[in-house]
Amino acid sequence: MTTAAPAPFTADDYKARMDRAAQAAADAGLAGVLVAPGPDLVWLTGYQPTAITERLTLLVLAAGSEPVLVVPTLEAPDAERAPGAPALTLRDWTDGKDPYAVTAPLLDVNGRFGVSDNGWAMHLLGLQQELPTTSYASLTEALPMLRGVKDAHELERLTAAGAAADATYEQILKVRFSGRKENDVAADLAALLKEFGHSQVDFTVVGSGPNGANPHHEAGDRVIERGDMVVLDFGGLKHGYGSDTSRTVHVGEPTDEERQVHDTVRIAQDAGCAVIQPGIACQDVDRAARAVIDDAGYGEYFIHRTGHGIGVTTHEPPYMIEGEEQELVPGMCFSVEPGIYLPGRFGVRIEDIVTVTEEGCRRLNNTPREMAIVE
Amino acid sequence: MTTAAPAPFTADDYKARMDRAAQAAADAGLAGVLVAPGPDLVWLTGYQPTAITERLTLLVLAAGSEPVLVVPTLEAPDAERAPGAPALTLRDWTDGKDPYAVTAPLLDVNGRFGVSDNGWAMHLLGLQQELPTTSYASLTEALPMLRGVKDAHELERLTAAGAAADATYEQILKVRFSGRKENDVAADLAALLKEFGHSQVDFTVVGSGPNGANPHHEAGDRVIERGDMVVLDFGGLKHGYGSDTSRTVHVGEPTDEERQVHDTVRIAQDAGCAVIQPGIACQDVDRAARAVIDDAGYGEYFIHRTGHGIGVTTHEPPYMIEGEEQELVPGMCFSVEPGIYLPGRFGVRIEDIVTVTEEGCRRLNNTPREMAIVE
Repeated sequence: MTTAAPAPFTADDYKARMDRAAQAAADAGLAGVLVAPGPDLVWLTGYQPTAITERLTLLVLAAGSEPVLVVPTLEAPDAERAPGAPALTLRDWTDGKDPYAVTAPLLDVNGRFGVSDNGWAMHLLGLQQELPTTSYASLTEALPMLRGVKDAHELERLTAAGAAADATYEQILKVRFSGRKENDVAADLAALLKEFGHSQVDFTVVGSGPNGANPHHEAGDRVIERGDMVVLDFGGLKHGYGSDTSRTVHVGEPTDEERQVHDTVRIAQDAGCAVIQPGIACQDVDRAARAVIDDAGYGEYFIHRTGHGIGVTTHEPPYMIEGEEQELVPGMCFSVEPGIYLPGRFGVRIEDIVTVTEEGCRRLNNTPREMAIVE
Repeated sequence: MTTAAPAPFTADDYKARMDRAAQAAADAGLAGVLVAPGPDLVWLTGYQPTAITERLTLLVLAAGSEPVLVVPTLEAPDAERAPGAPALTLRDWTDGKDPYAVTAPLLDVNGRFGVSDNGWAMHLLGLQQELPTTSYASLTEALPMLRGVKDAHELERLTAAGAAADATYEQILKVRFSGRKENDVAADLAALLKEFGHSQVDFTVVGSGPNGANPHHEAGDRVIERGDMVVLDFGGLKHGYGSDTSRTVHVGEPTDEERQVHDTVRIAQDAGCAVIQPGIACQDVDRAARAVIDDAGYGEYFIHRTGHGIGVTTHEPPYMIEGEEQELVPGMCFSVEPGIYLPGRFGVRIEDIVTVTEEGCRRLNNTPREMAIVE
């Protein structure tokens, strides 16, 4: 946790990413990529507008052309200071001008473009109206692996974020659970993540007793009691890269059934990790974890996919889900997080971030997965 | 500031808003409205997902049909607890299903729908692929005034938010500016907004000296010096409704030129407010403020529109800008915020939120607009 901050990404790093993205688009038969503010733009340029507003900011990437960032005049000074700015050209537009008309000359009007998933519908409609012969596909559909394979510098950051999440888990085991509200334990988790170097906390799930059976429950006013199973799921960004880990703990001694459910999830999580190697499909990870839970008779209570990618966000492609045939490639990073949710009773989820290696996988979360007993 | 929290909006309130939105859509020749997570969904249902993700959540409103909220199964328990949930039907979809196929039967396939500006491009593309004969328009284009006219309960909240911002300004005049970093004063502003009841701080601009000439500068490491003009622009949400006010102060005695620029902006701001009355166009507010600045010879340095609406966000239609012919209606709330920005030197901006009344306008910010001298 006391390690030095990694060296910042340089304009050359961003240039290399933009070049790769433009080339990947060309290889996929696209005329280019249209990048909206958010994780794609951060990853490609280091630029994050103060706020994402109705004013169009759009990075246009196309093989053989210089990258151009269309930006509101008001925000141009901020954009000029982005670390990737030296590797691109700014084209600013002032209030009252039509930003789509400013963008249009940058595009091959008969081409097909990949657009950031989270780009605003309003802006896509503006472009569609301005350029009726141009077509568009979401990046998740057209270039799902644009940010999917991490380089060594990214892995260094994800490893550091994972270690900080692990340190958070080790410390949270020492706090009191029984008699305190979920929200109080969640606040402890957030404070620990920050203490261990996170700049941003994205979620701190504390799902006690029946609340644990709702996988998207965050934390509430429920007072944790002796006998509760408690799902902990927390993460955020450290040095711009994500952490996300889950462990399920028990307040006092568990019942045999609680042990059995927890063991089932733990074995399923191991099974999901065990099959990981380059060349298998994402859905194989889901199938391996799900088979263990199905065989134990809890299949209907595993109500979500097994995992999601992580990088400059805590939630991105690739997805470990039935039907996803994307092959695993060394450098991909994603969660393996099976769970069992018994409505009205309790839930169990165990989650590590892993990275695909030449040999198989390496976990970026390494705290014990056995059920910890807390006070 | 010590006033009691307003009564929460009820399911009936949300039902009335959804009915009005569906009717407004029908009146505009639309088959309905498709509402994405964000301010539109909060305003119509009170529902705010924990995170906005790639999983489709979409409210479908159409005159003559019950409102339906398409929601990921994982998030259905959260959605069920939303205050507007009793007034709608949930239709959940599980991971692995096609959410657009789930949504399609809810739509008139040959109709035109208004969609939330900030809906994800990915989801719009998914719908366009599923329903090639359906067409779409952004809500800003199709129903720009959907949230534009505030009712008495909303005005009560906006008034309270404005009063809290005013209290913040009064207190910030007492802190030391010279010798401290912009970031330190910005932190003071944020703390004061929270102290006066804001649940969320959206921006705390402290633009000192040359930084004030960049209207979108937030705050940085620059140490404020004696002789600096300092633009302060801050706001956020209190009880779910926005504040946004700007004043420009001076550290020590200003020069004659600084006084003149400040006076020009103050007179322009008054001129913008003075023309407000039901029936004039939004652009008339911009023209009135801009004329003062043009006449003083600073026209080229007023590089943004004069104002924007405010409500459940701090930035929404209507926009006070040349070309915007929308008529003002009692209950509309927006900023009047002309500015002059002299590159490399200093900037001045003065901003109040106002609401249109039957007689003219009422300001929701009421601190002195004359240049305050700070230490």
